[in-house]
Amino acid sequence: MWKAPELDFEQMVKNKMEGNHFMHDIGFQIHTIESGLIEGDLELKPRHLQQMGFVHGGVTATIADIVAGFAAFTLVKHGQGVVTVDLRISYLNPGKSDKLFAKGYVIKAGQKLFFCESELWTMNNDAKILIAKSSATMAVVNTEDIKR
Amino acid sequence: MWKAPELDFEQMVKNKMEGNHFMHDIGFQIHTIESGLIEGDLELKPRHLQQMGFVHGGVTATIADIVAGFAAFTLVKHGQGVVTVDLRISYLNPGKSDKLFAKGYVIKAGQKLFFCESELWTMNNDAKILIAKSSATMAVVNTEDIKR
Amino acid sequence: MWKAPELDFEQMVKNKMEGNHFMHDIGFQIHTIESGLIEGDLELKPRHLQQMGFVHGGVTATIADIVAGFAAFTLVKHGQGVVTVDLRISYLNPGKSDKLFAKGYVIKAGQKLFFCESELWTMNNDAKILIAKSSATMAVVNTEDIKR
Amino acid sequence: MWKAPELDFEQMVKNKMEGNHFMHDIGFQIHTIESGLIEGDLELKPRHLQQMGFVHGGVTATIADIVAGFAAFTLVKHGQGVVTVDLRISYLNPGKSDKLFAKGYVIKAGQKLFFCESELWTMNNDAKILIAKSSATMAVVNTEDIKR
Repeated sequence: MWKAPELDFEQMVKNKMEGNHFMHDIGFQIHTIESGLIEGDLELKPRHLQQMGFVHGGVTATIADIVAGFAAFTLVKHGQGVVTVDLRISYLNPGKSDKLFAKGYVIKAGQKLFFCESELWTMNNDAKILIAKSSATMAVVNTEDIKR
Repeated sequence: MWKAPELDFEQMVKNKMEGNHFMHDIGFQIHTIESGLIEGDLELKPRHLQQMGFVHGGVTATIADIVAGFAAFTLVKHGQGVVTVDLRISYLNPGKSDKLFAKGYVIKAGQKLFFCESELWTMNNDAKILIAKSSATMAVVNTEDIKR
Repeated sequence: MWKAPELDFEQMVKNKMEGNHFMHDIGFQIHTIESGLIEGDLELKPRHLQQMGFVHGGVTATIADIVAGFAAFTLVKHGQGVVTVDLRISYLNPGKSDKLFAKGYVIKAGQKLFFCESELWTMNNDAKILIAKSSATMAVVNTEDIKR
Repeated sequence: MWKAPELDFEQMVKNKMEGNHFMHDIGFQIHTIESGLIEGDLELKPRHLQQMGFVHGGVTATIADIVAGFAAFTLVKHGQGVVTVDLRISYLNPGKSDKLFAKGYVIKAGQKLFFCESELWTMNNDAKILIAKSSATMAVVNTEDIKR
């Protein structure tokens, strides 16, 4: 069956994202889908915070995982997906803002494994404050194998 | 002012938890608070899942962070708290169940840094399935410094 | 060709170790080879130290990698080996002693990936001092693929 | 006592390196010392390899730790040093070459903690092959405290 690749690519990622319930639940919005790169942002609400008023490390980790995973997903073959094998996140600065920005990108695309990184930051008067840097290892899976 | 230590300890941790909005938001319940050990569980709902129907890696990371952080918090001095410096999580098995169990514990308590681990598992007919193992490095902070 | 499995197992691991030049170069000795478990020790010499007189973090990381990797290797099929995908090590206490002990073990054995942990410690008057805890993700490879 | 800062800086790092026995033992040479950046290389010898003929993951981890640690050291105050708290290394490609290049740099310099990254690569006909990417968390220590 013929498929227009230029339509397929971004749409395929968007279709995949639709089923990512937890991403929608926390309110993360993706606005850039390129080959090996995903960018998005999150409007920070009180529900996203921990007891000191900073963004919860779990929110940060969730977004780091999402942008890395979908960045890898943009590069796998049709019928393949990725699952996170390992995620490491370093919390560089406390996140105190009304908006969180995130970027995930692939640093090595392999047949079986993808290595990705994520950056999360806030903006303070045009100054970018990096609040977290993350690296993730993703395993390529055949979607059919997962469904069985 | 005099304080009954046995009352103070568990209550102090519970007070701290009250402000942890994201923990309450996802629905994680803590049922065991001991010195250097935290245990709890999460009723898995559709909102916690990713597109393959497994628990989202961000949910897992969030809980790993929470139980490790509060396990460290049980051991710091009055007026101190902890913030996560680094969180590393390995996803061992896909989480497919209606309940997720978690345990966080301290493996090294230092003056400035705590090293903790977390385990997350599901139960399948009395068989424990480890879905994630995590290690976290926490920095001790003076609560007053954070507020300023 | 017939092979006595009980002979094959430990001998196969020992054969593999023979080619591990860097392990021999630093002087690490393995004394226990069990299914999913490797133990050994290192006589600490001045060459193993950093500028503060503690064991160099690179020595610690090397040993953490070796014991984890060979622990995984005890569980793969004939004709398979493992390569390290990710190694994460937490330095819990400074290593100051004349001998370093190490243990590596498998926490999840998969078809494609193994998750392992390592512990390194010194002994101080019968007290075990944990100096590092490590987790490693290993990928199963077919030895034939590597040679090509 | 008066000190010429421009002389002090590079010389201070070099003095520190002199005592790093394991770095000299494996033969790693540093050729660039800048503020927050260290670069160097290693002539690969058979002693640095594992059983498949690739550079041993322990050699890679050692160099990743060294360049990250000294990159942090270039930015601490006089009388301070750094110790590695956590090291994570991802092995992206097998290292098969006669020379290994490395770079370590600081991504966040704090009062108590430094976050650094390292990259290790080989050159194959002018093509850079990234064999490892590493992130490290370093704790600032007062050299006097360590000596006591």
